[in-house]
Formats: sequence, C-alpha cells, structure tokens
Amino acid sequence: MYAVIMAGGSGTRFWPLSRRERPKQFLAIGTDDPLLRETVDRLDPLIPPDKVYVVAGQRHAQAIRALLPELPADHLLVEPCPRNTAPCVGLAAAHLARRDPKAVMAVLPADHHIGDGPAYRAVLAAAAERARAGEIVTLGIRPTRPETGYGYIRYDRTDPVVADNGIEVCRVERFVEKPPLEVARKYLTSNRYLWNSGMFFFTAERILADIKRFMPHLHRTLTAIGSTIGRDDYPAVLAEGFAGLKSVSIDYGVMEHATADVDLPPMRVVPADFGWNDVGHWAALADFAEADRDGNVVAGDAVLVDTRDCIVHAARGTAAVVGCAGLVVVATDDAVLVCPRDRAQDVRRVVDRLKRDEREELL
Amino acid sequence: MYAVIMAGGSGTRFWPLSRRERPKQFLAIGTDDPLLRETVDRLDPLIPPDKVYVVAGQRHAQAIRALLPELPADHLLVEPCPRNTAPCVGLAAAHLARRDPKAVMAVLPADHHIGDGPAYRAVLAAAAERARAGEIVTLGIRPTRPETGYGYIRYDRTDPVVADNGIEVCRVERFVEKPPLEVARKYLTSNRYLWNSGMFFFTAERILADIKRFMPHLHRTLTAIGSTIGRDDYPAVLAEGFAGLKSVSIDYGVMEHATADVDLPPMRVVPADFGWNDVGHWAALADFAEADRDGNVVAGDAVLVDTRDCIVHAARGTAAVVGCAGLVVVATDDAVLVCPRDRAQDVRRVVDRLKRDEREELL
Repeated sequence: MYAVIMAGGSGTRFWPLSRRERPKQFLAIGTDDPLLRETVDRLDPLIPPDKVYVVAGQRHAQAIRALLPELPADHLLVEPCPRNTAPCVGLAAAHLARRDPKAVMAVLPADHHIGDGPAYRAVLAAAAERARAGEIVTLGIRPTRPETGYGYIRYDRTDPVVADNGIEVCRVERFVEKPPLEVARKYLTSNRYLWNSGMFFFTAERILADIKRFMPHLHRTLTAIGSTIGRDDYPAVLAEGFAGLKSVSIDYGVMEHATADVDLPPMRVVPADFGWNDVGHWAALADFAEADRDGNVVAGDAVLVDTRDCIVHAARGTAAVVGCAGLVVVATDDAVLVCPRDRAQDVRRVVDRLKRDEREELL
Repeated sequence: MYAVIMAGGSGTRFWPLSRRERPKQFLAIGTDDPLLRETVDRLDPLIPPDKVYVVAGQRHAQAIRALLPELPADHLLVEPCPRNTAPCVGLAAAHLARRDPKAVMAVLPADHHIGDGPAYRAVLAAAAERARAGEIVTLGIRPTRPETGYGYIRYDRTDPVVADNGIEVCRVERFVEKPPLEVARKYLTSNRYLWNSGMFFFTAERILADIKRFMPHLHRTLTAIGSTIGRDDYPAVLAEGFAGLKSVSIDYGVMEHATADVDLPPMRVVPADFGWNDVGHWAALADFAEADRDGNVVAGDAVLVDTRDCIVHAARGTAAVVGCAGLVVVATDDAVLVCPRDRAQDVRRVVDRLKRDEREELL
C-alpha cells in the first residue's frame, strides 16, 4: 500500500500566512507541525515514509524535500503545470504501475487535519482491503453541519461489507456537487449523505483502466509519459503531455462516471469519523485547535484583554487584542489581517485585490 | 510673548505606536507631522521659533533637538524627573523671569491637534493681551459632547472684556474636576461650562507671585534653581530641587486657588472654537483626520474589504481588514493592536499588562 499525497494546492484563504511560495500544506495552523509533515507522520506505521509519494508543482519541490527529508528522491513527482486532481492521480498511477500494477494507492490531500490518528489508520486499512479486491473506495465524513462548501456522497447504509478490522464499507449511490443550504440541511438530517473527503483508494491498474474508459486523452498522455520514466526524455514528454491536458478533478472525470457504470465493480465508501477537518480557512481552527478558557485560539505572542472567541496568530511580534469577540487576527512579517470569524472565507478577496494591484511581494 | 510647550507627556494610549522613548508628541497621528512639530509650526508668525521654550524629560531631549533643530539650545528646559505641570510651569517662569519678568508666557501642551490655525492664533493674541495686563488667562473649549474625561471651567458670559482683535475674554467662575456623565450632560446643555484645554497665559512675574502665594515650597525651590541659571551648579541644584517636589498640576496647585482669591485680579477664559482635539486615544482620530467615503481613517498601506468606520494605522507592512466596522487596527514593527473604537481608552490595559510582565522591549 502506497500513499499518494497531493500537495499541489495553492490556497489563498490563509493569507497573509500563506503565500504562493508557502501555501497551506507548508504551514502549521492549529497544529504543531506543517500540515504536510503531519499528513506523512500520521500514516506511520500503516504506510511508512518509504511508501509515500508526493505530487506537487516545481515551485514547491525544494520546500517539500526540506520538510520531508526521508522521502526517497524519486517519490516526489513534479507536475510541470497544475491540471487539477485527475492528471495528478494519473501521473502517480503511471509511476506506481511500473513498480507494481496491483499496488494499492491511498490518494490523500496534503493539507487536512485529522484528530484521531489510530481511527484514521483503521479506516485506511479497511479501505485498502476493498481496493486490493479491485474496487474504488472513498472516505466519507459524517456531516455535523449543513455545509455548503463540500461535495457530498449519497450512500447505501444497508448490507455493508465488513473489513477484517470490523469497519463497515458501504456502497456509494452517487456523488453530489456542493449543495445549496436548504438541500444541505436535508442531507444532514437524512443520514444518507457523507462529506466527500477527497481521499480515494484503488490499485494503480484499476484507476488507469477507469481513466482509459472515461478520459482516453489523459490515458494516452499518461502512457506516453509512463514509457519514458527513468529516461532522459521524461521531463520533456511530461511537460508537453501535461500542457495538453485539461484541468479536471478525479471526482468529475472518473468517480462520477464509474459510480454510474453498471459494468464496473461497485464504488465504495467508508463512513468515517476521525476528527476530520479540511482547514478551509482561518475560522476552521476553532473546530479543532485548543482554545483558552475564553474560547481564544492563540499562536505566538498575544496580549488579550477582555477578548473572547478570537483566533489570534502572531507569526511575528506581539498581537494585542482589546475588547473583541469572534475576530481573526493574523500578524506576519509584512502584513496584518483582521476579519470576523464568519467572514474568513472572504480573505480570498484581499488576495484578489492584491493580484489586481500586482502586489507581487504580498502574494 | 513666549511659548512654553510642555512636552513631558508619556501617554500610553497610542501603544503600540507610542513607546516610552517615543510618546505621542513625537508621533504623526492623524496629522502630517509629529504633534510637537505641528504645535511649534502653528504658532508662527504670532510666536516665532526663537521665542519658543520646550520643557521635557532627559529621555526625550535628543528627539526634541532632532525634531526642532531651530530651537535655541538654551530653550530646551530639561526636567530631571517628572513632577506634573506646576513645577514644569514654574521652571519655565524662573528662566523667563531672568530674561524679562513681564514676558508673557503661553503655556501649551505639545500633543494637541488644532484644526484652524488662524483662529487659534487670534485667540492666543487676545489671551496675551489680558496676560500682559497682569491677569491669568486660560483657553476654554466649547463642549460638543458630555465628555467625562476632561476638567471643565464654569464661566460668566455676561460683561466680557473685548480684546483689540474683537475676541471676547470672559471671567472664570471656577475650575471643575472631571464630572460624572449625568453632570457632564447638564454642563453641555447649560452653555455655562467650557472644557479646560490646559493652555494658560500669564507673565512670568504673575505666575511666580501666585506660586509663592499658594505653593511656597515650590517657589523656594524655583528661587534656588533660578539663582544658578547659567552656572555650573545649575544641573545639581535643579536635580536636587526637583527631587524634593511633589507632583502637582498647575490647575490644582495655583489656578483653583487663584480663582477663589478675591485679592487677586480676575481669572479669565477665552471661549474658543478652533477645531481643538487633545488626541487622547486612537478613536480621537475619527474626530479630525480625513476619512474615506466609508468612514475609514487610514494611514500607511491598507487593504480594506467591506469595511467601514475603522481607524487603520499601518506604520509597517500592509494592514488588511475584511468585513469589520468601528475597529482600531494598528500595525508597527513589533506589535499589532486591534480594538473597537469605543474601547480605545482601554489600550492602556495592554500597557499595564506589559509592565506587569516586564516586557521592556514593548514599552
């Protein structure tokens, strides 16, 4: 079993801490270590570091090598340009298929927080068991709120397959796009929907077969790239191949079609509950990071007077907050951010403004 | 006519911009130049720089010489230790009396904002006229709100003395301590009270006579100090003399008594209206600094998204504020402050905390 960690993200919602050169996966936010480092560490011992692959852009290759010094040199797969998750997963599958077509790939985002490591590894083991049998398995998170920012998975709770470790694996009925609030409320109370965590499990040969079926152009490109692995012309073929690909997510490009295709084995989901958080914006820290008795989540040097329910992150200097409630306050070397917790999604609007004004030094 | 600018303040309510070494009078807050620099500049041409004296602590002597290079060397009077305004005024009077006992002193705080310079100078000219006649004159600001943070002056609007420039000078009935809110409301509607601006006018001989009458110990000390001016033993006599003084304000030590003393000439006040602001805390900037169309007062590099009525001062880096209203946000080299405008008075609590924790580098 191999882990394929997708570390190509370039999230903007943790500005000013996150920058182009240092996106979320390289930051310790509400955690002790950077999220990518924690992602690798929590897989051990189920997946030791020498079975980990990381896919990322050239821009971040050096930072990844510094953060994960134990990663074998040829386990860092560099995407010449970002093309969303289908090409990313396909590239990793092409590499793994040369080593072992039956290798189980656990495809994992680099920048999520998981509260309960042992529960997480147990779920991974159960998912891998079904993947080894040729099925595609995803992890679905039990919803705790009517979230409109995630995709959902409708699943069949009856007649689950039980893995060796006792964990139930269910059948996916279908993948659902991000719903409006009223619909999300119904999903929440129905108990028939899970959040799509973006974690997938399959063998290299299975995902390549499905890519061939549903994304034939991508498959031809991957075949061309795969045939040059280890050769001098690999970088050129990779660059040319990726440049000609469309940006498509693995969910949209493969999973949705594969779920609907009766000729394929059933799509599976493990309903999971291991303290998952996608760390989508500053306010998310309140969901998992430790708060003081006034509900403040603090990192760095802070002086709080009459202040509650704030998220204060002082990467540089001292952050003093007086008489505030429910604010996000972030201080870095060259910038400060202040916004209410319930506006944390709108931090991207600051980044948009900086892009418009070509403030490259702040991006 | 001489100006005596009292620059010994060490205000804490502009932290993190203000520090022990750089209190408010050295900062440009809501203004183009530091407040002390503006205080000197707005006196010209009524009082040219060579008629200006500045009284301050040793800690700030160098900064004052740098900020006011045109100040004659012997016009910077250094207090060996802070003893409030009565000793400060007395020291200046002792110096001026040696030069000219009938010299009119305009005693002025270093750190106030004045919106209308010509109106201000006209009021000063009127006050000086009465001071030259041996009276003590103060400037009273017409109240615009039931402020509880200032002292008040009750005055007699009937039968004013009219100065050469047509400005009316009234008689003070009494000085009043900072009132509770209900009382301040009554003062506001009564039209019989003015805010005590802390600006006074008198001849050197008149104020020394009143100090002798009401603060004999201070007078003896000043006489001893005055006799050594220009001699080598001046610093030692000054230091020993000041160390033995109590901290007393000129209002409390002299003005209140002089007003009540029927043997003395009447105490005068010029009711004034020249855009006065004592710049007491960050929120005060909203009263006089220019705001953008959303009511934000901005200094430095700021990115404001959906934000109104905020005071944003970025002395270093970029301050981004998203979805906020009525906040103060200050960013400096080593600290950030966030507080609601109506809590700006409580910034001193941050400074208190820093003192308690011996965070000398932030004080």
